[in-house]
Amino acid sequence: MSPGGAVERARLRDFYDDYVAYLDEGDFDSWLDLFVEESEYRVVSRENFERGLPLATMRCDSRRMLADRIHTIRRTQTFAPRALRRFVSGIRPQRESDSGLEVRASFLVAESLGDEPTRVHLAGRYVDLVVSVDGALKFRRKVAVYDAPIIPISLIYPV
Amino acid sequence: MSPGGAVERARLRDFYDDYVAYLDEGDFDSWLDLFVEESEYRVVSRENFERGLPLATMRCDSRRMLADRIHTIRRTQTFAPRALRRFVSGIRPQRESDSGLEVRASFLVAESLGDEPTRVHLAGRYVDLVVSVDGALKFRRKVAVYDAPIIPISLIYPV
Amino acid sequence: MSPGGAVERARLRDFYDDYVAYLDEGDFDSWLDLFVEESEYRVVSRENFERGLPLATMRCDSRRMLADRIHTIRRTQTFAPRALRRFVSGIRPQRESDSGLEVRASFLVAESLGDEPTRVHLAGRYVDLVVSVDGALKFRRKVAVYDAPIIPISLIYPV
Repeated sequence: MSPGGAVERARLRDFYDDYVAYLDEGDFDSWLDLFVEESEYRVVSRENFERGLPLATMRCDSRRMLADRIHTIRRTQTFAPRALRRFVSGIRPQRESDSGLEVRASFLVAESLGDEPTRVHLAGRYVDLVVSVDGALKFRRKVAVYDAPIIPISLIYPV
Repeated sequence: MSPGGAVERARLRDFYDDYVAYLDEGDFDSWLDLFVEESEYRVVSRENFERGLPLATMRCDSRRMLADRIHTIRRTQTFAPRALRRFVSGIRPQRESDSGLEVRASFLVAESLGDEPTRVHLAGRYVDLVVSVDGALKFRRKVAVYDAPIIPISLIYPV
Repeated sequence: MSPGGAVERARLRDFYDDYVAYLDEGDFDSWLDLFVEESEYRVVSRENFERGLPLATMRCDSRRMLADRIHTIRRTQTFAPRALRRFVSGIRPQRESDSGLEVRASFLVAESLGDEPTRVHLAGRYVDLVVSVDGALKFRRKVAVYDAPIIPISLIYPV
């Protein structure tokens, strides 16, 4: 998986398009399948991320934990007509090491809630580690670092 | 047109980039050319879409109707300095059948109107049917399902 | 560099992803390297652009001027926790001439400032001229035309 090649970046783009499409459509099973078993998922504020603080708004240290989290979301979700749409830009492969390919990208989440107009929910960057398993790309690590302080209660769904 | 291949998804991405570029630039003739003659175009609220209600904010059952609609917009448009910018993410081929390839994607429209700051106009998802005609991709069906209730009067232009 | 080919558009997409990624990450050296020495960079309001007025919110007539500008930004920037995220859509090659390939695209910038929620900072279109130098794409001209009037003071960073 050479980070420089045009074909590989197109493949990365497909991978991130799948990621946001599954989340936007609420297809959490397919979304979970984009992570390896031994994976780390975190949503963290920029301030805590840059200070290296362990505090995270959402933290799962394996796919099993992530699956549990999704199970909880599904059981407790109210039927408030909330819709989230995720937009990704600037997908860029960085260093490649034995652990995988580090990838960064910018994200924006738009939220439509009840009768209010759609607004920007949050924006930030992904700091990810991507590996290839049997020819398919998967996340070994996915960290969503959001730029602005937000009320954690509103962060029910993964970013 | 195999939905899985990287090249094909890159081609779909080009197609959607053309679609939003033509609309953003107001090049409606090129935009109309992205639809087959026997095509369906709808802009519909999520609520009505999910309930299967026939109500639509905009509805055209052929390219000819769509062309008429554009003609009306062009004649009646005031010169209020309104600018719309469309952003697409999560472009994903779904089922392929004899009717074509079903494609879903998320969209966000930013609006700049008069002296006010730019804001999110609406967000939602496309539920489309894409066919290949003489080597060029075209829409047989394009449905823009927006997430939040909006004032129909502000929806003058296609999404 | 044939504008029509799928591979070439994927390559353009990589180029624009690099552009926004460098800016979002504050990697200005890599960003500057995306311009040829004799390049033009402008940020201009739609009104002034369409009237052909020379007024620009930011204007640099060479990469050296652009580097000076970046140097000034770096020296004078306060440590206010401002984060900008750029999103690009509708990347479309236009005419190709001896000067290079004209490319248009839509952009949206999201801003997170202090304790406030993330909001749309500005949106508009790029009107660019891209050339290939030793196999790498570079900007000979980059014009960011923003749609809404904004307060120039807030436009510290390039778009």
